[in-house]
Amino acid sequence: MVLDVWFTEKHEDKQGISLKVSGILYSGQSKFQKIDVIETEAYGRVLLLDGLVMTTEKDEFFYHEMISHIPLLAHPNPERVLIIGGGDGGTIRETLKHPSVKKIELCEIDGDVIDVSKQYLPSIACKMDDPKVETHIKDAVEYIKDKKNCFDAVLIDSTDPLGPGVGLFTEEFYTNVQDSLRENGVMAAQTESPIACRKEFKLINKLLNGVFSVVKPYFAPVPTYPGSYWSWTFCSKVTQPEIYDENTAIEVEKSTKYYNREIHRAVFAVPNYVKNLITRSQTAK
Amino acid sequence: MVLDVWFTEKHEDKQGISLKVSGILYSGQSKFQKIDVIETEAYGRVLLLDGLVMTTEKDEFFYHEMISHIPLLAHPNPERVLIIGGGDGGTIRETLKHPSVKKIELCEIDGDVIDVSKQYLPSIACKMDDPKVETHIKDAVEYIKDKKNCFDAVLIDSTDPLGPGVGLFTEEFYTNVQDSLRENGVMAAQTESPIACRKEFKLINKLLNGVFSVVKPYFAPVPTYPGSYWSWTFCSKVTQPEIYDENTAIEVEKSTKYYNREIHRAVFAVPNYVKNLITRSQTAK
Repeated sequence: MVLDVWFTEKHEDKQGISLKVSGILYSGQSKFQKIDVIETEAYGRVLLLDGLVMTTEKDEFFYHEMISHIPLLAHPNPERVLIIGGGDGGTIRETLKHPSVKKIELCEIDGDVIDVSKQYLPSIACKMDDPKVETHIKDAVEYIKDKKNCFDAVLIDSTDPLGPGVGLFTEEFYTNVQDSLRENGVMAAQTESPIACRKEFKLINKLLNGVFSVVKPYFAPVPTYPGSYWSWTFCSKVTQPEIYDENTAIEVEKSTKYYNREIHRAVFAVPNYVKNLITRSQTAK
Repeated sequence: MVLDVWFTEKHEDKQGISLKVSGILYSGQSKFQKIDVIETEAYGRVLLLDGLVMTTEKDEFFYHEMISHIPLLAHPNPERVLIIGGGDGGTIRETLKHPSVKKIELCEIDGDVIDVSKQYLPSIACKMDDPKVETHIKDAVEYIKDKKNCFDAVLIDSTDPLGPGVGLFTEEFYTNVQDSLRENGVMAAQTESPIACRKEFKLINKLLNGVFSVVKPYFAPVPTYPGSYWSWTFCSKVTQPEIYDENTAIEVEKSTKYYNREIHRAVFAVPNYVKNLITRSQTAK
């Protein structure tokens, strides 16, 4: 008989996602957070940071394709990319599908996340040692400060606005990110669930609107995240995200599971209740 | 101290959605199924049939707006509508927002679902006694058999393909639905999750493709359903769902929470992995 063991991630002590667990592959405490990898029947291996699902083998494609291809295809020729957080390597793997990219800097605060991902999540972390990748085990809040006018794209693949990730959700940080971008530069950040994390979604949207001229949230499912309905936000000084490089998109969509050009056009549709959240957050400035 | 009570709906004994419960408002056994209404902190009141979440006060709008407005706006002038299942009344409430609709027939097999919904879910069941609504407590499999060329829209708001809903997922039933439609008639059905219920999604898609000329799945979140990423499928003999009545859409979107014209254009984008599922199911015919 198989042991009936379940992991439940509870969100705000009101709702949760439960996964049947067939094994605990790794449990450790880094300098910053608790790191676990569990084996589940529904989603394969799952990386947990401080007990929260960060990524799973079977649904990571939604998240990683959204945070990378939407902003990178909106840029006419992204060469230099900064990924903040992203220690599991999924965003690196997707970013490398863009032939124009010459260099990826990964700024991850917790080196243990990288090591654990390389060992236990090879399908996600498979490209972390690519020669185009330069890894910095540093706090991005500090790392970004002296980077001026140098990136074509900054992808903020962070944890939630608590624990080691909290400094990545401030006006000062977003201002530094904007200053780090070249003229046509683009930024995309994970910006929480518009259903389970409405407060955080509103707050981040308000902060981004205070810094960037172009601020466009976009939406897709991530089944193992709270609410399972997730948002990212595209920001830039001038570049619009709905216009993408058609030829590169055709190439990219050959190896994606979620992304394609139809999806690119669709993800920016904003539901009525989300429009109300955003309008209220903007007028509350 | 508040009692720490949780309900978990387990899907295929692999994954689940957990909700903190503050009260059990109703528990009964109808002729067909177990019916419960629980009070939850995250989603308000929740209707359960045989222990599975059917609808919740706080996220029902995703589901009910999708199953009604997409097909009804694709029809130039829907007057006579058949709703199959739908005993909670949410689809009736949304359908009545279309001024052209003269008569709604509700064919629900279980009268207890209607009674319980009227008593415990007034925000959803609020329009069930509207004079345009004619309620039939009958098995839709039988009800549809002698209805020929009479409906402008049939909305299949069914449970999952198990228990009393199983007969609503057959080629014979779908053929009868097609025969019940007028020439421009449209049909929409809930067609399970393209992530958590891939097998069912594929099977239903294959069945529908065997019957209807126009078969177009569409997608939206339903946070409290398995996988939280849901599908409906639009079918017709000739009518295309992407073309909608602009003036009616403008009116409808004034009172919707999810639906608007941007969303209407977006929901038909099919992710790459879902295209693969559908292609395989079609070639397997």
